[in-house]
Amino acid sequence: MAPSVHPSSSPLFTSKADEKYANVKWDELGFALVPTDYMYVAKCKQGERFSKGEIVPYGDISISPCAGILNYGQGLFEGLKAYRTEDGRITLFRPDQNAIRMQTGADRLCMTPPSPELFVEAVKQTVLANNKWVMVSLIPSRFLPFWFYVPPPGKGALYIRPLLIGTGAVLGIASAPEYTFLIYTSPVGNYHKASSGLNLKVDHNHRRAHFGGTGGVKSCTNYSPVVKSLIEAKSSGFSDVLFLDAATGKNIEEVSTCNIFILKGNIVSTPPTSGTILPGITRKSISELARDIGYQVQERDVSVDELLEAEEVFCTGTAMVVKAVETVTFHDKKIKYKTGEKALSTKLHLILTNIQMGVVEDKKGWIVEIDHFIGTDSFPDEIEGKSI
Amino acid sequence: MAPSVHPSSSPLFTSKADEKYANVKWDELGFALVPTDYMYVAKCKQGERFSKGEIVPYGDISISPCAGILNYGQGLFEGLKAYRTEDGRITLFRPDQNAIRMQTGADRLCMTPPSPELFVEAVKQTVLANNKWVMVSLIPSRFLPFWFYVPPPGKGALYIRPLLIGTGAVLGIASAPEYTFLIYTSPVGNYHKASSGLNLKVDHNHRRAHFGGTGGVKSCTNYSPVVKSLIEAKSSGFSDVLFLDAATGKNIEEVSTCNIFILKGNIVSTPPTSGTILPGITRKSISELARDIGYQVQERDVSVDELLEAEEVFCTGTAMVVKAVETVTFHDKKIKYKTGEKALSTKLHLILTNIQMGVVEDKKGWIVEIDHFIGTDSFPDEIEGKSI
Repeated sequence: MAPSVHPSSSPLFTSKADEKYANVKWDELGFALVPTDYMYVAKCKQGERFSKGEIVPYGDISISPCAGILNYGQGLFEGLKAYRTEDGRITLFRPDQNAIRMQTGADRLCMTPPSPELFVEAVKQTVLANNKWVMVSLIPSRFLPFWFYVPPPGKGALYIRPLLIGTGAVLGIASAPEYTFLIYTSPVGNYHKASSGLNLKVDHNHRRAHFGGTGGVKSCTNYSPVVKSLIEAKSSGFSDVLFLDAATGKNIEEVSTCNIFILKGNIVSTPPTSGTILPGITRKSISELARDIGYQVQERDVSVDELLEAEEVFCTGTAMVVKAVETVTFHDKKIKYKTGEKALSTKLHLILTNIQMGVVEDKKGWIVEIDHFIGTDSFPDEIEGKSI
Repeated sequence: MAPSVHPSSSPLFTSKADEKYANVKWDELGFALVPTDYMYVAKCKQGERFSKGEIVPYGDISISPCAGILNYGQGLFEGLKAYRTEDGRITLFRPDQNAIRMQTGADRLCMTPPSPELFVEAVKQTVLANNKWVMVSLIPSRFLPFWFYVPPPGKGALYIRPLLIGTGAVLGIASAPEYTFLIYTSPVGNYHKASSGLNLKVDHNHRRAHFGGTGGVKSCTNYSPVVKSLIEAKSSGFSDVLFLDAATGKNIEEVSTCNIFILKGNIVSTPPTSGTILPGITRKSISELARDIGYQVQERDVSVDELLEAEEVFCTGTAMVVKAVETVTFHDKKIKYKTGEKALSTKLHLILTNIQMGVVEDKKGWIVEIDHFIGTDSFPDEIEGKSI
C-alpha cells in the first residue's frame, strides 16, 4: 500500500484547499527542524547485525532512562542532503561516504553499525517516504510541481539525519546492549544567515578535540561541548567559532560544524584528518575539485600565522556546502579576506552545487539517484500493512 | 493515595508468597541496572525554571528524534547513593554537592539546571518512592525488615542516577529548547569485582579530557569516548584504565570512572581540578578525612614518574567509595602497591563508610537523612490521583 499524503501543519508550509501537496516556503527556511512525515527505525542487539528497519510515521521514540545515549553519550550522527536536479530527479551526494564514516565512528565508540548497503538503502527509503515519490511514480518527474517536498533546484534541500544511538540500558560504563539506527529528515535552507561571508572568532578558551579523543568521528560528544563557545561568539556578532588544536594552541583545526581551508597563491591548505578533525565529505570533494582546476591542495598543520596571512579562507560542510570567510578575529586583530564572485570559494561552490543539482554531468560517480522504482521491490514491503 | 507495592520480576529478587516486599540478593549484585518501581521526571523550557516534577512508574520515556541529547550529546548525569544506617535510617551522602556539580555542568553545556533545593528534594522523593517508605511511615524504621529495598548496612546501596538532558528538538548546533530532569534508581553492589585491589593499565593511545573541554563536569560526553580503552584493558585482564593528560602525556589524570590518589611517606597527592579532572565528591571527602588523620594532601600535577615510585595508589568515586590499586602497568612495567588491612586506602574506606552507614557520628554535616515524614507535605501531592 502506498503511503497517503498528510499535509504538514508547520507554519513553513502553506495549504490551499485545492492543493494536494504542501508548499514549502523555501526562501524563509533556515536550518531548523521542520518535521516531515516519516522516519526510518531499525534496532539491533550488540554484536548482532542490523536487518531491515521500518518506515514509520515521524514522531517521538520510546527509550530507556538508562540508555547509553542518555547517560554516556554513546551516539553518532550523519548529515546529508537530497537534491532535486534541474530535470526533476532526486539525488543524494556520496551517501556511501556517510555510511563508511558511521562505521568508523561506531568502531571508535564500540557500537554496532548498520552495513553501508543497509545505510544507503535506508536513506533512500526515508527520502522516498518523505517525498510521496511512490504516489506519483507513474508521472514523469519533470511534470512534478516545483513546490514538491524536495526543493526546487537552487533553493535548499531535504536534509537527512541518520542517527546511531545506544538505546540499551547500561549502568556501569560500557557499550550499550542494544542500538537504534534512525533516520529523519527536514527541509532546510542556508545554515548561516550571512549572505556575504562568515565572520569567525578564534576561540582561546575552549578546544574542540584532542589526540586520542573522538574529534575524528561524528560522535555526538563533539558537539554539546562547543555550544558555549558558539553562543558567546554569536552574542558578539560573529557567525561561528574557529577552534585551535588542544596540544599546542598554535594550529587551526575546525569551525563548530565545518572544516576550514586557506588559500595563498596557488596553494589550498587544510588541516589533516589525524584524529582531531572531522573527515568531511564536502572537505574531501572540494579538495579534489580544487586539484581538478589546477590548485595544489595540502593537507597539513595550518598555523594561526598562516591563517592571518592567507588571501582567502573558506569553510566546507554538508549543511553549508562551501562558504567564504569574510573576516577572522584573533585576539584584537580582525583580518579581512577575499570573498565575492571572483573568490575561489565561490567558484568551488558553483562547481560542486552544479554537480549536486545535476546542472553539469557527474563524472566522479558522486551522485546517487533515487530511483522511484526502488519502491517496487523494497519500499512497499516495509510499509505494507501499516496505516501510513 | 500511597503507592502500592509491585515486587519486581528481576532475577535479582526472590519472592515468597508470604513476603510483602522483594528480597534483593545483595551478595550477588554488581553494578548493573535492576529497575526499581518509580522515577522522577520534571521538564523545563530553556531559560525558564524547573518546577516540581512528578514521581511516575519507572519505564521508557518518550523523546523527539531531534532532541539535543540524541544528536549532540547535551546531557549531564550525577550519581549518589542512599544508605541504610545501622539503626535503620535511610541517608544520603552530601547530595547538595551533586546538586551544585549539576549546576556547574549545566553552565558549561548551556543547559537549564534544577535548583539545588529542587535537586535534593527530588532525590529524596525518588528514594522514598522506591522504598515504599510512605507505606510504612507509621512504623518506626528500626522495625523494618532487613531485606527492604535500601540494602542492609554494609551490603551495597541504592544507587541514584539523576540525569539532566536536552530533550527539545534542535537541528543546528545550539542549546535545546527544552530540558528534562530525571532520576532513577537501582540497587547496586560493588563496581569492580576485584576483591583485593584494582589492576590499572596506563592508556597510551587515548586521552580522556583536554584543556577547554568538558573533563571538569559530569557531561555524558566524557564517557562513551573511554569505552574503547576500557574494553581493550578488560580484555587483557585489567580492571580499569588510567588516563594521562592530553597536553603533555606526562601526568596522570583520572581512571575511567574515578579519581586517583598516590601516597608517598606522609603525603597524599591527587591531580588538581583545573578543568580536565572530575571534581569528585568522594575525592573531596577523602582529602578532608586524610588531612583529619594527619596526612598532608596536595592537589597538584602528579607525574607518571611519581606514580611509579608511590607506596600506595587508590581510587575514589561514588560507585566504589575508596578502592586500593594493586598494580599499575605502564608500557611493559608493572608496579605493585601496598593494599590490605594496613593500607591507608583501607583505613580511609572504613572511616568514610562508617560515616555513610551511621556507624560513627557525622561531625561534618555530610549526612542527609531522608525523613519519612517528608511525604506529608510534598510527596503525596506529587502522586495524588495517579494510579501508582
